[in-house]
Amino acid sequence: MTTPNPPGRREQRKAALRQTVRDAAWQLVVDRGYEAVTVDDISSAAGTSAATFYRHFSGKEEVLTRRWLSPERLAELAPHIDKTQGLAVAVASLFKAYATMAAGYQVNVVTRLKVIHRDIGLEIAMARGRYEDMDTLAQLFGEISGQSPGSLAMRLAASLTVNARIVAMSRWAELDGQLPLDALLDEVAQTLAPTLDNCETAHDRFMDSDAGVIPV
Amino acid sequence: MTTPNPPGRREQRKAALRQTVRDAAWQLVVDRGYEAVTVDDISSAAGTSAATFYRHFSGKEEVLTRRWLSPERLAELAPHIDKTQGLAVAVASLFKAYATMAAGYQVNVVTRLKVIHRDIGLEIAMARGRYEDMDTLAQLFGEISGQSPGSLAMRLAASLTVNARIVAMSRWAELDGQLPLDALLDEVAQTLAPTLDNCETAHDRFMDSDAGVIPV
Repeated sequence: MTTPNPPGRREQRKAALRQTVRDAAWQLVVDRGYEAVTVDDISSAAGTSAATFYRHFSGKEEVLTRRWLSPERLAELAPHIDKTQGLAVAVASLFKAYATMAAGYQVNVVTRLKVIHRDIGLEIAMARGRYEDMDTLAQLFGEISGQSPGSLAMRLAASLTVNARIVAMSRWAELDGQLPLDALLDEVAQTLAPTLDNCETAHDRFMDSDAGVIPV
Repeated sequence: MTTPNPPGRREQRKAALRQTVRDAAWQLVVDRGYEAVTVDDISSAAGTSAATFYRHFSGKEEVLTRRWLSPERLAELAPHIDKTQGLAVAVASLFKAYATMAAGYQVNVVTRLKVIHRDIGLEIAMARGRYEDMDTLAQLFGEISGQSPGSLAMRLAASLTVNARIVAMSRWAELDGQLPLDALLDEVAQTLAPTLDNCETAHDRFMDSDAGVIPV
């Protein structure tokens, strides 16, 4: 008699495979350059088949451009986000957890950022992911503050947080990771804090109202 | 005896022609859709030739995606920017001047934003323009605050300002321009003000140091 794996176990195996593929892809891209690496190369290096690869990713671009707050990454970060003390504390705790996580990646984030910057296709994919990250954060901020995620205040807070992180990361990459990422991100979170406070307490006809999103 | 036009006059004629081409292009795109409009259509509607068109623009994409702080637009806005009272006041005065200018465009900005949002090529062109806008603003902020334009603090201030404007504009477009743009942008400028103050007074090893730019 066979017992089906519980969904949790299956999800874990899936996440592990995806991470193996990502690590293999980044290692190859660092060694050979983005253009020279094929999906077959990545699949072989990850010990799997191209068919399996395509069950998990649309192509090599997607492997290399996971957005910041993708569902799987957010699931890892979520337990570390302090949601009890408002947006500014939530962002500081999120940045801290992210810095810890980023320190553990096999191919380091500085290298990744430089590779992405050299390829317009990758940059575009990253830019698209930012809109999704903003939606994810606006949801989180809405949950914390009790405001609508679609309000101007929540979307402003989300956009500024996403972009503040990007500025910090590119600064850090420029300096070849010489500064401690956690301290750099914390500095940025503190700089942003009073504006996040303003967003949290916003209640006027401009900041408070709700509508669908045009991500211009 | 012929006297050459002073450079100021020539520049004015050039700017006027470019604006005529832009207005014609936007009117055609609104009437027929982006895909259906050709450079020949635009040139004819503007009363000029395709050859002249290509002396001023690389293609129809460029006509439709002037960045926020392009040199010609900045030249118009600059006299209205208050540089004497720090970054927050500078941004508020810049937003105010921009709102006044945007109210005067022949094809209104709401329509433009919706057209741009429907086309990925235009969105990408706009996204690239944002990096240039950030550099422009970092220069301005550096001038105002006496900090290096390449410092983390100035680049953070620039990125947040560029993105705060985008959030306000997309909000405004969603509501079909029903809210007064000047009041909406002012609200966003006020929300951002304390963080701009923080950037202005930043003096530590993270915010203060300088290096080349990787716009990730």
